[in-house]
Amino acid sequence: MSGAGDQQERLNADWIVGFADGEGCFHVAINRCQKMRVGYQVLPEFRIVQQERNELVLAKIREFFGFGKVAVNRRDHHGVRKEFRVRGVENLRKLVEFFERHPLQTPTKKQNFELFKEVLNLMEQKEHLTSHGFERVRKLALAMNRRRRLRWGV
Amino acid sequence: MSGAGDQQERLNADWIVGFADGEGCFHVAINRCQKMRVGYQVLPEFRIVQQERNELVLAKIREFFGFGKVAVNRRDHHGVRKEFRVRGVENLRKLVEFFERHPLQTPTKKQNFELFKEVLNLMEQKEHLTSHGFERVRKLALAMNRRRRLRWGV
Repeated sequence: MSGAGDQQERLNADWIVGFADGEGCFHVAINRCQKMRVGYQVLPEFRIVQQERNELVLAKIREFFGFGKVAVNRRDHHGVRKEFRVRGVENLRKLVEFFERHPLQTPTKKQNFELFKEVLNLMEQKEHLTSHGFERVRKLALAMNRRRRLRWGV
Repeated sequence: MSGAGDQQERLNADWIVGFADGEGCFHVAINRCQKMRVGYQVLPEFRIVQQERNELVLAKIREFFGFGKVAVNRRDHHGVRKEFRVRGVENLRKLVEFFERHPLQTPTKKQNFELFKEVLNLMEQKEHLTSHGFERVRKLALAMNRRRRLRWGV
């Protein structure tokens, strides 16, 4: 394959930031989990959801980052939706570093990113495992997307 | 202001393409209009709709292109939505040239762009003013977004 061909095929960092400003979602799920001392498990995730027709673009985003996964997001009467998703504190830290080098431009996404980063910092310091730290995570998660109801009904 | 400051403030072409891949919409409205020989007016438009909080980004996109307009898209119980929009064959041609130099990456948006370009070509040749040409425009507009109903109920 020619170098020019490769270049055309590979996504560019600024394109990814623009696409994430539109389609990316920073999300922190909080699920009941009796095993945890605080009674809940904290699951931060970044995802980009697309119609199945755009799956190749998700695969290219996965290729660009070198981590994360392309998987089914939802199947319903509209068809199949796929997602590129990043989970796990270690990979999410690399993702955060990417968006620090290449800042998001929309105030809405930028704000969610800042809150998400705070959750990640707390998790890296294991603070989410204490009652006080978990309470902070819970408030950050609530602030991230006021329209979305958390599963445990806060 | 420093050059670096300016650079940080200005949007980059690849970011705009990524954002348009997510949030941009190529749309061809076809409205009844008795003045026109074929009975309908063809109104092609490109728009990016955002919550009011992201208005500054729309203004920066406007600044980047040097044409188009930022205006209210909708007011409802969710609040105000703003849009960056480009209308008029001359400015739309410049927009098309931009996306030819900086290609869209998602198959869904790319396909709509190709159909939109065909409509624009027909309009530049004034073919939409003839019955035969109008019929072609109508089919292209229908193909552009199958989920959307045209206002005149096709």
